[in-house]
Amino acid sequence: MKKEADEIKVNQVKIVDSFWSGLQEKVTDIVIPFQERVLNDEVPGVPKSHAIENFRIAAGLKEGEYYGMVFQDSDLAKWLEGVAYSLSVKPDPDLEERADEIIEIIAKAQQPDGYLDTYFIVKEPGHRWQNLHECHELYCAGHMMEAAVAYAEATGKDRLLQVTERLADHIIGRFGSEEGKEHGFPGHQEVEIGLMKLYHATGKEKYKDMARYFLEERGKNPNYFYEEKIKRGWQHWGQYNTEELDVSYNQAHQTIYEQKEAVGHAVRALYMYTAMADLAGTDGDGRLYQACRTLWDNIVNRKLYITGGIGGNPEGEAFSNNYELPNDMAYAETCASIAMIFFAHRMLESEMDGVYADIMEKELYNSTISRMQLDGKRYFYVNPLECEPGVSGKLFGYRHSLPERPGWYACACCPTNLVRLIASLGKYCFSESDTAVYSHLYIGQKAELKKADIAMETSYPWEGKVLYRVTPKTEESFTLAIHIPYYVDFRKDDTELTVNGKPVDAGELTKKGYVYLDRKWNAGDVVELQFPMEVRRVYANPLVREDAGCVALMRGPVVYCFEGADNEGPLQSLRISRELKAESHMCEEGILKGNVLIDVDGCRICGGEELYSEKPPVREKVRIRAIPYYAWANRGENQMRVWMPEEG
Amino acid sequence: MKKEADEIKVNQVKIVDSFWSGLQEKVTDIVIPFQERVLNDEVPGVPKSHAIENFRIAAGLKEGEYYGMVFQDSDLAKWLEGVAYSLSVKPDPDLEERADEIIEIIAKAQQPDGYLDTYFIVKEPGHRWQNLHECHELYCAGHMMEAAVAYAEATGKDRLLQVTERLADHIIGRFGSEEGKEHGFPGHQEVEIGLMKLYHATGKEKYKDMARYFLEERGKNPNYFYEEKIKRGWQHWGQYNTEELDVSYNQAHQTIYEQKEAVGHAVRALYMYTAMADLAGTDGDGRLYQACRTLWDNIVNRKLYITGGIGGNPEGEAFSNNYELPNDMAYAETCASIAMIFFAHRMLESEMDGVYADIMEKELYNSTISRMQLDGKRYFYVNPLECEPGVSGKLFGYRHSLPERPGWYACACCPTNLVRLIASLGKYCFSESDTAVYSHLYIGQKAELKKADIAMETSYPWEGKVLYRVTPKTEESFTLAIHIPYYVDFRKDDTELTVNGKPVDAGELTKKGYVYLDRKWNAGDVVELQFPMEVRRVYANPLVREDAGCVALMRGPVVYCFEGADNEGPLQSLRISRELKAESHMCEEGILKGNVLIDVDGCRICGGEELYSEKPPVREKVRIRAIPYYAWANRGENQMRVWMPEEG
Repeated sequence: MKKEADEIKVNQVKIVDSFWSGLQEKVTDIVIPFQERVLNDEVPGVPKSHAIENFRIAAGLKEGEYYGMVFQDSDLAKWLEGVAYSLSVKPDPDLEERADEIIEIIAKAQQPDGYLDTYFIVKEPGHRWQNLHECHELYCAGHMMEAAVAYAEATGKDRLLQVTERLADHIIGRFGSEEGKEHGFPGHQEVEIGLMKLYHATGKEKYKDMARYFLEERGKNPNYFYEEKIKRGWQHWGQYNTEELDVSYNQAHQTIYEQKEAVGHAVRALYMYTAMADLAGTDGDGRLYQACRTLWDNIVNRKLYITGGIGGNPEGEAFSNNYELPNDMAYAETCASIAMIFFAHRMLESEMDGVYADIMEKELYNSTISRMQLDGKRYFYVNPLECEPGVSGKLFGYRHSLPERPGWYACACCPTNLVRLIASLGKYCFSESDTAVYSHLYIGQKAELKKADIAMETSYPWEGKVLYRVTPKTEESFTLAIHIPYYVDFRKDDTELTVNGKPVDAGELTKKGYVYLDRKWNAGDVVELQFPMEVRRVYANPLVREDAGCVALMRGPVVYCFEGADNEGPLQSLRISRELKAESHMCEEGILKGNVLIDVDGCRICGGEELYSEKPPVREKVRIRAIPYYAWANRGENQMRVWMPEEG
Repeated sequence: MKKEADEIKVNQVKIVDSFWSGLQEKVTDIVIPFQERVLNDEVPGVPKSHAIENFRIAAGLKEGEYYGMVFQDSDLAKWLEGVAYSLSVKPDPDLEERADEIIEIIAKAQQPDGYLDTYFIVKEPGHRWQNLHECHELYCAGHMMEAAVAYAEATGKDRLLQVTERLADHIIGRFGSEEGKEHGFPGHQEVEIGLMKLYHATGKEKYKDMARYFLEERGKNPNYFYEEKIKRGWQHWGQYNTEELDVSYNQAHQTIYEQKEAVGHAVRALYMYTAMADLAGTDGDGRLYQACRTLWDNIVNRKLYITGGIGGNPEGEAFSNNYELPNDMAYAETCASIAMIFFAHRMLESEMDGVYADIMEKELYNSTISRMQLDGKRYFYVNPLECEPGVSGKLFGYRHSLPERPGWYACACCPTNLVRLIASLGKYCFSESDTAVYSHLYIGQKAELKKADIAMETSYPWEGKVLYRVTPKTEESFTLAIHIPYYVDFRKDDTELTVNGKPVDAGELTKKGYVYLDRKWNAGDVVELQFPMEVRRVYANPLVREDAGCVALMRGPVVYCFEGADNEGPLQSLRISRELKAESHMCEEGILKGNVLIDVDGCRICGGEELYSEKPPVREKVRIRAIPYYAWANRGENQMRVWMPEEG
């Protein structure tokens, strides 16, 4: 197997898009500055972070006690990574200066042997590396590595990169398969991603080797966590004390090659799969790629909500059984959906298969941005597919699933992953190989790639019209490979791909979801894609208990939902007509302004006063309105459903 | 308001019925002896009970430590009550002798001041009555009173009655509205029922007055539990330590007259309503009866599963919101369904309204006997309306809801309430007033009432045919009032009531669900009721989220369910045809022998391999089988559903 293409850098793409630019601005202008104040304990009413203060204490710059979760360091690391992307898309010398100062503190906190984790430096100096299962030292290290690489890329400054290289060297010195080293691996995967990024940034094989070690050691000795527990005399630190060891929760029950089903904590799993996919592509390792694909297929064909939500089991933020996708009880943590994008993006490097780009799109337009209130001020952690006021967020089984996005204060660190994603959105738009440029997403932007500058204009996801302007930087011919979403069919009317106005036989040129345009490009060449943006009915496999006989509406990549605010009567009493007379229109006012809404025919089952009746209920014809799923819960507490039964 | 009729005694009715006699035998011959061995710690593999041993220690007959829950005494009391009913229906001198010996131990354990609770006698002698909220002393007292009255009725022996009278006097001495007494009330209602029964048995007003005190004190000072907590310096005993005080859980948030919605722990609530209804009838207290009716209506019109299951919230075994009746997550504890029968039975004394008898029937034929495996050997605690193997009993949200009845050992005390109910079934068949005999249930039996001996022959619930043979004991005319279930309609063909073969205009003679036959009765008079036993479709109010658009099948009082064992494909993929071609037949072999099964037309939604598809699913015609709900989970783990979507 040979890697098909490499990822590009964040700063190669400038997003200029009616849909995404506003979101990027919310991230750079609102979220990042707010988080900085939280990390500095400057926001009244928000639970104390102490994350920077912990580093100051570890650095000897302040006196004091450690405060926070055992993984508090990662909050700062994730913020720094977000800052790096933010500086790439919107330079800000003041912010950069403040970030530099914080990096100096981090550098000072690092111990002479390279160790860096303020919880153990300040609070438990005698217990380093004794509880990989619960104590997140490797997790925090991984996030710091990601931040360091991003910051170096964005600013050219390698101070944090040096720090994390020394940290990585310290880790390499302690863990490994060699005799005399500890054969440990992390309880929460993440360091594998960090090490792979260190490798890509530095070219040093030892980091890639260490990533492979951590991945391949996993599951070789499923009792490792138990053995370290005995070794430390059942002591524990931090807030965790797992009595029962179910190591499938940490994906350590089998080796990565033996694992055929996505199980356990969803974010742990997807961070692991992401690193596996990166390593598979980087090493051209077909066996490892196949292991990734098996897990990918299991998720996509058995465990993925239609919204891209991942994690049907709220207990442990975990994958549930195959086909067990409860709507009102869904966990579907945004972080897992974002991690699914990381995974998909890495899979593309090994194989340009449109299914990966399709899932990236599904995640981007649904279960990730649903996190954010339309005004950018409040955030969800959990993304259910059904909401019932008075039940959601309140009753047993549903407490995790809030009917409205809570205020900042409730989850100050939660938006971080969304920040990382949206600020770095550019790098998901293209990949590049020696011979081809691959376009994965329809997002208005200007890209500076190796072989060409490409400007894209589009009003996607609302309209099926995309225009590429190509300005080549080479005399040689190369391929522009454009991802065609799975729902676009060139056999249909109004669906057309043209180059400089001339139609091309796109069906013929399409392979696994990409249309390959191989030619000598000239400045000013225009590729134009056009397809009808229809309302589509989607059905779940009847093995999904809750969705059998139901339909969900999609338009382009956007999944729709129904809210009480738009529809009369309880949502469960509504039925969508099998003869779907759907009309779409752009909403021109109110909080939903700028979103395309859908109206369809249906009926309402009318009930009387009785709880049970032997009279067949009467059905009334109604028009039912759907709004984009990501825009739910912006009009106060009200019912919401994605799936609705269909009737003849 | 005047009481309409009195309850009869258990030993006035001998059940001779093809449906119920076998169940009664299981109770007298299997369950009661087994429980005796459990209480004596003689069953290997079953968690230690120690209940009798605790009394021996309290009585000074043995040395040792207290063992068990803070309400362990009630296990013995409930068993003794069951023994009393069992002796009424099937005399057993050996069993009676052993029960007498146990009663002697109980008497010896009673303290000189009348106090009786082995937990506090043996383990916490300094802390009596300091934690009414959590410590169940009044609850245990109430159960002992019920046992005492039942035992006296069955055997004529008043030893235990004397003990509980002294206990009641002790309680009266301590609690009450008078100055100098403590204004407390129980955290778990039950003593109110016990005191009312003591009153009925002895005629002593003080017991009724005390029951009224406990009922009316409730909610007057909703902070009582909090105040006693402060008073005892936040100490607690037993296994409970409720940090947060939500006194609506104990129905203490308002006075009984202010409470309009059934909330909190379902069994606590229904024990309270039962005592309220008893007191209302006994005192002819219209205001109190109205308070009961309001709560009754709330349950029956908003919070009752079609199976009679009660408790939509597994957390705290509690009532949920109005119309919130999750099927797979249902709690629907058998004890609550049994308590609903107690409540209904007491309501009948104030008002002969068929709705009470209808609900008694619903509970008897569905959510109570569903507890017991058909072979009598295993028991459910929880009675869901949907079961999914791999999810039920396993995953978050569903752990309480097992896919098969667990062994005895898992809930040695659970069958007790079912034992009480089934052994005493006779007393629910009739009530009697000065002028009338009321027949509530169609159960084959011979009854010795004041005004007449009445023999009933029936093959109910499988056939709509009931025959009464009346042998009057009086020359005067009296009324035989027969409950006509709500689904019987005299305007229909094949529906007829005859007296000595002559049709009577039953519609004309019917008032609130009872047909009143007022005449001078002669020995050998025969009343015969005949009605067609059709398969009926029942619809839930569309306000019930999970059942909107679904149908459930009933035949007579029996609710049906669908099991995977009988139907191909996952149950959620099945749809019942709106043109219901139903056929019933008596099952002649296998574990379901003797049960009427139903086959109906429907279709199956066929799925492919994909998780989501834009191809409308194909529907295949199928025949769908339903079995009585109470008989589910007798053929290994498999899917089960009561509600099924209906399609045109």
